[in-house]
Amino acid sequence: MKESLEQCHVCVIGLGLIGGSLALALRGQCASMAGCDTDPRVVEAAQARGVIDRGSTDLADVSSGIDLVILAAPVGAILTLIPELPNLIPHPFHLLDLGSTKSAIVEAMGRLPERVSPLGGHPMCGKETSGLDAAERNLFRGSVFVLTPLERTLPASIALARQMIEAIRARPLILDAARHDRLAAAISHAPYLAAAALLDAAARADDELVWTLAASGFRDSTRLAGSNVTMMLDILASNRAVVLEALSRVQASLQETTRLIERDDRAGLRSMLAACQSQRSGMFQV
Amino acid sequence: MKESLEQCHVCVIGLGLIGGSLALALRGQCASMAGCDTDPRVVEAAQARGVIDRGSTDLADVSSGIDLVILAAPVGAILTLIPELPNLIPHPFHLLDLGSTKSAIVEAMGRLPERVSPLGGHPMCGKETSGLDAAERNLFRGSVFVLTPLERTLPASIALARQMIEAIRARPLILDAARHDRLAAAISHAPYLAAAALLDAAARADDELVWTLAASGFRDSTRLAGSNVTMMLDILASNRAVVLEALSRVQASLQETTRLIERDDRAGLRSMLAACQSQRSGMFQV
Repeated sequence: MKESLEQCHVCVIGLGLIGGSLALALRGQCASMAGCDTDPRVVEAAQARGVIDRGSTDLADVSSGIDLVILAAPVGAILTLIPELPNLIPHPFHLLDLGSTKSAIVEAMGRLPERVSPLGGHPMCGKETSGLDAAERNLFRGSVFVLTPLERTLPASIALARQMIEAIRARPLILDAARHDRLAAAISHAPYLAAAALLDAAARADDELVWTLAASGFRDSTRLAGSNVTMMLDILASNRAVVLEALSRVQASLQETTRLIERDDRAGLRSMLAACQSQRSGMFQV
Repeated sequence: MKESLEQCHVCVIGLGLIGGSLALALRGQCASMAGCDTDPRVVEAAQARGVIDRGSTDLADVSSGIDLVILAAPVGAILTLIPELPNLIPHPFHLLDLGSTKSAIVEAMGRLPERVSPLGGHPMCGKETSGLDAAERNLFRGSVFVLTPLERTLPASIALARQMIEAIRARPLILDAARHDRLAAAISHAPYLAAAALLDAAARADDELVWTLAASGFRDSTRLAGSNVTMMLDILASNRAVVLEALSRVQASLQETTRLIERDDRAGLRSMLAACQSQRSGMFQV
């Protein structure tokens, strides 16, 4: 199988924000770019905008000669697609997915025939908007791109993914799939559920003025609750046990905060809140 | 007492982000602008930058002829200042505060001598940065400015505050102090504590890579945890019972979410998350 991105014929499946942005970022850095989407209007728009060289709603139409298949669909769709790929692509190929959780996907990849070299991936970036219209060439620039190899993953596939990550100006980070999922639960899935809980709790405050008074702090705190619900349900379902663990840690923290406020323990509260403030200012400049 | 902002000699106490921005926004719209701050360097900088006409660390130095006193300090400092004001300003005056919680402040205002006409206020805006350097003339533009009058508040004080709010291009909203505090707990104090809990829980995930992987979603979700801790401790202490109620509603929502995930109730989870998503997209365009 080919080991150089320049010589690879690439096919991106799923031309939304992530798949569309990746196709855009890889234009001119691979031999050709094909694209598939279940929505024919999206395929047409991607061709019209020059995001892809050729496209179809049917992978079989564009699979001839493909060296690298990139799955950029929601987790549920990726899990459905993986076992269908060998029938649609009869030759050896590199397979990379960009799903938001990795353990279930990597497990499904493990059941593929030997001629496929599969590799899990997750670019740690995103926007509140979704769809091809929101796609942009620089989406990945500067962000961490997690790779979760299987034991069977060919070194050539990892080398190819590294070239791709360099081409889109991201930073590769090789991780065990289970470790990725634990981390993603802490920094993404639990924060999403907390954002939803803040909105739900504000609604249950039962005062319609709550929405009038909400300003930038509430807007940012609840931004993740604007995410696509179907996409998030897939993520939660595929990472259930670990999400529950992360949620229980958040609950325990809130419980401890509640206890400190109840006891009027200003020193204890200050110490906890100051640690959080200092952690955060160390992470983000703004 | 004067009823026209143009004729008023104003004094802002506390020249941080809020007080400094208000003084800037009111320049040229009142007869004169004095300013006080406990930090002599801040007073000096405010004079050098033209934020105030005259300033001091001691209110007695600038109090002569003052018509409107605006308290723009943290809640704890406002509560300390209120009973001291009559000794420092021997004549009748309008008093407005900009503290983040209102019940305790309005209660303290109620004990002032009759020659003072007090009015609670809270501009619903802010930035993660603080201090005079972050002050900007347009900070209040378009935001809601809550007023919480006392029974004893003179109509002239409310009229003056309305002129001021119009001058800084904010939108006035008259509210009962207790109602303001309940709403603020839902949209600001509980979200602050949730942001801190997300950071605390992420730290307890016990994997140093958690900070490497955190991207824009985590950054926005935890933005409020970057707030000034002393300011927040004052707010929490002065709004304790109501904050505990808001926290318990957030915990109940998280508990319900946990139950839905445990039961793998995709339909129930979808209905809850979709309601939150739709609530949020109705509130904020971005």
